[in-house]
Amino acid sequence: MSGKEIEISEVGPRDGLQSIDAIMATADKKRWIAALAHAGLREIEVGSFVPAKVLPQLADTAEIVRYARALPGLTVAVLVPNLRGAQDAVAAGAHKLTIPLSVSETHSLKNLRRTHQQVLAEVREIRALLDQLPKDQRPSLEGSLSTCFGCTLEGPVAEDAVLRLGEGLLEAGCDEIGLSDTTGYGNPVQVRRLIHRVWSHLGRESLHGIHLHNTRGQGLANVLAAVEAGITTVDASMGGLGGCPFAPGASGNIVTEDLVFLLEAMGYSTGIDMERLMLAREVLAASLPDEPLFGFLPDAGLPKGFQYAERESLVVA
Amino acid sequence: MSGKEIEISEVGPRDGLQSIDAIMATADKKRWIAALAHAGLREIEVGSFVPAKVLPQLADTAEIVRYARALPGLTVAVLVPNLRGAQDAVAAGAHKLTIPLSVSETHSLKNLRRTHQQVLAEVREIRALLDQLPKDQRPSLEGSLSTCFGCTLEGPVAEDAVLRLGEGLLEAGCDEIGLSDTTGYGNPVQVRRLIHRVWSHLGRESLHGIHLHNTRGQGLANVLAAVEAGITTVDASMGGLGGCPFAPGASGNIVTEDLVFLLEAMGYSTGIDMERLMLAREVLAASLPDEPLFGFLPDAGLPKGFQYAERESLVVA
Repeated sequence: MSGKEIEISEVGPRDGLQSIDAIMATADKKRWIAALAHAGLREIEVGSFVPAKVLPQLADTAEIVRYARALPGLTVAVLVPNLRGAQDAVAAGAHKLTIPLSVSETHSLKNLRRTHQQVLAEVREIRALLDQLPKDQRPSLEGSLSTCFGCTLEGPVAEDAVLRLGEGLLEAGCDEIGLSDTTGYGNPVQVRRLIHRVWSHLGRESLHGIHLHNTRGQGLANVLAAVEAGITTVDASMGGLGGCPFAPGASGNIVTEDLVFLLEAMGYSTGIDMERLMLAREVLAASLPDEPLFGFLPDAGLPKGFQYAERESLVVA
Repeated sequence: MSGKEIEISEVGPRDGLQSIDAIMATADKKRWIAALAHAGLREIEVGSFVPAKVLPQLADTAEIVRYARALPGLTVAVLVPNLRGAQDAVAAGAHKLTIPLSVSETHSLKNLRRTHQQVLAEVREIRALLDQLPKDQRPSLEGSLSTCFGCTLEGPVAEDAVLRLGEGLLEAGCDEIGLSDTTGYGNPVQVRRLIHRVWSHLGRESLHGIHLHNTRGQGLANVLAAVEAGITTVDASMGGLGGCPFAPGASGNIVTEDLVFLLEAMGYSTGIDMERLMLAREVLAASLPDEPLFGFLPDAGLPKGFQYAERESLVVA
């Protein structure tokens, strides 16, 4: 096997925590994020700069960002819905800002209360804000295209619309775009085709990451298609937090623990140690004792005689 | 998309029912199998000819085979551990016999209490039995290679051993072999490689089907690899019956409902209608009210605007 590396971007502290009613204590969040980083996760989406009255679960995002910045080698990512959120993210020192844009305008109007053009206008303002910063303090900006693979309101979503809005995000100032299967509608053929169409239309450097859901049980099959197509960053959530498979409409995130096994078993290095990941899961479970955690690996364990993928960086070192 | 067809072989009435403590009433089994066939399943493994004291859940297999034979267009498959079982299967009129052979001899000795050579000797006797039958009444015989992708007792399993035993099964008289990930150890790279090695070593007609487990959540990702490699028959169990993901060691079968969505969404026709499949699930749930049923599609539903794959046979007709 090749020693190819895949980055798992842990979105549990943002996507997971925003989807549940319980509010994790700030000190617990710090312990959890530290444990995730210790397990080898190099990018963690730690929160979202939205008004606290909208998402009280993430009201401490600025403090969490400042804490996470001190963890060595970690890219601290946050969600920002608008310029105001970006200003807060910059002030806190986030390394990466992600702004969502829903390809389904019906979904965009209902969830973000904004048209496509309004979101693109925010992106231009955020770009102007970031360009005022010294280069070495400038966070990266990703435009995340939601409902890329279909919408619960509109049904099928035109791939041409994904390409057009992806182009719009890049023109407005995003460094790259991401594809998101918000509804869990995607299938491997569709995932592969859309990735190749984006690269063909917008260039290979426009897209590195994908956010897939497991709402219909297809999460890891879709990851397989994406990674073998050439995607190098995959979002996942520890314990599938916030994605109860028995609650339709929940986020249904891919489970980090199971994703690590898929990738490492196939020869893709994630840099993640499963034993340490289980310790991070213990921190999570202790912090949210009433929240169900999902995943097969935590119960089934790694296969007898399992070997991690070789890491190129370790082979070279 | 091409109109390629994939056959889902439903193993719930055998693999599912043998893994749970409850015993489904014979009349309920008949209703369930009829509902499965009505939903479009064209091959169902309806039972196992083992002594009733070993698996009381399947003690009515002969009656079930006779019933299922009357369902139009259905291939009635059964498991047989030995010649005695094959004799009973022939007497009942099964269309397809499957005999398991575990590539891990430690597992074979522990589970079947037989060496590889003893199992191969049974296969030769079964072949002789079948060859005495008129051709139009002769069931097919498949040798199913268990623990192909690793063993909980031995750890990694040598692919050369899979090839050697596969060859042994064919020489002893099996019409074809099947690959089984008994332990849920497999990954897509391994699945793809082993399929190609079998075809290269034993010919393209030696292998059409695969039995994958979801013990580590990798079931559908492994199916994707297998089907895109060219496998045309995939085993699955309604509701993942008998495969509780939270009970390590359980069979962890792939969920039929979720598999249908994966395949149809990708453009592979299964011939299965999801609404009718849900009716079969209702029959199952009513028959085994205390048994947990798994799967995402039953809760999440098909995507808005979902279209089934085109069927070649329908296009032609």
